[in-house]
Amino acid sequence: MNYLLKDENSIYYECGYSSDNAIFVGLGSESFFITDGRYALDAKLGCRSGVEIIIDRDLISAAKRLLISNNIKKVIIDPKEFSLLNFNELSNGLSVEFELDKNFSQKKRIIKTPKEIELLKNAAKFGTIAFDNFANSIYPDMLGFDEYRLTHLAKEHLSFQGRFELSFSPIVAINSNAAKPHATPTDMKLNENDLLLIDAGLKFERYCSDRTRTISIDNDINCSLLQYFNSEEKKKVYDVVLKAHNSAIKEARSGMKASQIDKIARDIICEHGFGDYFVHSIGHGVGLDIHELPAISAKSETIIEDGMIFTIEPGIYLPNEFGVRIEDTVVMKNSKAEILGV
Amino acid sequence: MNYLLKDENSIYYECGYSSDNAIFVGLGSESFFITDGRYALDAKLGCRSGVEIIIDRDLISAAKRLLISNNIKKVIIDPKEFSLLNFNELSNGLSVEFELDKNFSQKKRIIKTPKEIELLKNAAKFGTIAFDNFANSIYPDMLGFDEYRLTHLAKEHLSFQGRFELSFSPIVAINSNAAKPHATPTDMKLNENDLLLIDAGLKFERYCSDRTRTISIDNDINCSLLQYFNSEEKKKVYDVVLKAHNSAIKEARSGMKASQIDKIARDIICEHGFGDYFVHSIGHGVGLDIHELPAISAKSETIIEDGMIFTIEPGIYLPNEFGVRIEDTVVMKNSKAEILGV
Repeated sequence: MNYLLKDENSIYYECGYSSDNAIFVGLGSESFFITDGRYALDAKLGCRSGVEIIIDRDLISAAKRLLISNNIKKVIIDPKEFSLLNFNELSNGLSVEFELDKNFSQKKRIIKTPKEIELLKNAAKFGTIAFDNFANSIYPDMLGFDEYRLTHLAKEHLSFQGRFELSFSPIVAINSNAAKPHATPTDMKLNENDLLLIDAGLKFERYCSDRTRTISIDNDINCSLLQYFNSEEKKKVYDVVLKAHNSAIKEARSGMKASQIDKIARDIICEHGFGDYFVHSIGHGVGLDIHELPAISAKSETIIEDGMIFTIEPGIYLPNEFGVRIEDTVVMKNSKAEILGV
Repeated sequence: MNYLLKDENSIYYECGYSSDNAIFVGLGSESFFITDGRYALDAKLGCRSGVEIIIDRDLISAAKRLLISNNIKKVIIDPKEFSLLNFNELSNGLSVEFELDKNFSQKKRIIKTPKEIELLKNAAKFGTIAFDNFANSIYPDMLGFDEYRLTHLAKEHLSFQGRFELSFSPIVAINSNAAKPHATPTDMKLNENDLLLIDAGLKFERYCSDRTRTISIDNDINCSLLQYFNSEEKKKVYDVVLKAHNSAIKEARSGMKASQIDKIARDIICEHGFGDYFVHSIGHGVGLDIHELPAISAKSETIIEDGMIFTIEPGIYLPNEFGVRIEDTVVMKNSKAEILGV
């Protein structure tokens, strides 16, 4: 099998290193990492043994030369990883058949290795600590802060003051803004008895954590799953989401279709009359990419297997009122889902 | 002229709004913004009048329907903006000629409008304030902090505690790490008399600022161009870079080739024997993208015009010793370069 990779995480998976200007060429059992001179030293230090490093200003030309000199007839690429420009430069004048295989690298990465599981566990553990640190710092010092500032402080805790990269820009949303699944910060200020949704993660050696808590702002702020809201409606919605979250995790099994996991949570939310307000899938795979395979949705035909790592994140979003989402990342082990970061 | 855009900034330029899942279709004088339901409300509020909003889960299909129903024969796309996957989906079964025009949108944006110049000036002004705030907070409180933490604190100041997005992740590099043009944070700790390079910017209404200062860590820390280093070599290198920076800005004229601006700075650095250590171009355009046209390099044939905005950033990098870079963003006005943010 011969393949070319352009995405930074796809390349990292093969080489143990990548740069923002690189191409990976796999020819049978041989591996080539092509980058420019700026990364020569780091590539030498970072790439796994067995990976041949090629330094060239023109990555595409270097890849073409490799294909020609090795007399390659057919090569796999993921059409999501290559821009039309790069593909045209690559294929121009080359008599090679390109087999387009969408999500080629993500499919290779769908079952995590023991080492990857260890790294993702570490990411989740630091993520949990960061959530606790953030929650502990809120009351009463952050009352009156707007979402911009709260988001910045979440970044401070999630990154451990700059030590870790973030999986994505955290969502820190108050009350009605939490009713938007992908809320961005606003001027809204935090007050006592507010509902606060925090969706955030960090990268540990490039592997992502992902977690969401919806918490009540009172003098006992914490990120546990036990939250006490003083509004009956919030209590009710929270309990339904929590039940959906717990049930999906408890009942998930290797051998199931991914769609069944979505169904477990969705059925509970629908039974309580909130089906129209659960507007996204129950989860997504997590690894080097914050969103990767397996898809855990109502349409996903993927068979769940041990070693898969994905989120379980049911939510109910009541427009202009509030939203609740509870998310954990789990690993399938001995056929069951085990929460990471506890 | 008909064209399709996929890049978020390219789309923003046309519509005054964009989302991370959108396509823009320009057909003669008609403008169409296609996005999915999550962004329906924001698109309605954000898009300029005259832009028709189309809500569809399948952006590509919606774009194809527009091309077919309007009987379009030829459409321009930038092959950098479309992945091979998107292009194949788009062109499949469609009898439309695609004209590939690299940097199509950036070419449209190369001369800034008065309103854009105003926004870029505001970005630069806030950037200057942030640099001063950061510098003022360094001494003596940040002595002993490592680059991770210093970088985090630079983000805090540049974002004004979360209020602004950043143009890019700031570079905050001490002594030998500053010898890498694209340094990433390390464990290195800040000490008295160190050299500190800060390259950072923020976004004001999506328009980027970009600035670099190389400063001396002493009890009179500041971000002015007057810096006093206690090592003769640092003094010498700093003075050469400063002379290159000042001369390029002073002598830049509309009507020149961009390569001439590079030459002004490079000649000075070469004359002093540091030519081999100035390893990048003198500058790049700045706007919605942090790097956009015009290219300001030794090879750039672009003729400089009033309304262009770009950086001037000469540097000298002595491997394992230290690096100095001084950067300002300038606008060409009345044929001369005027520094933004002063």
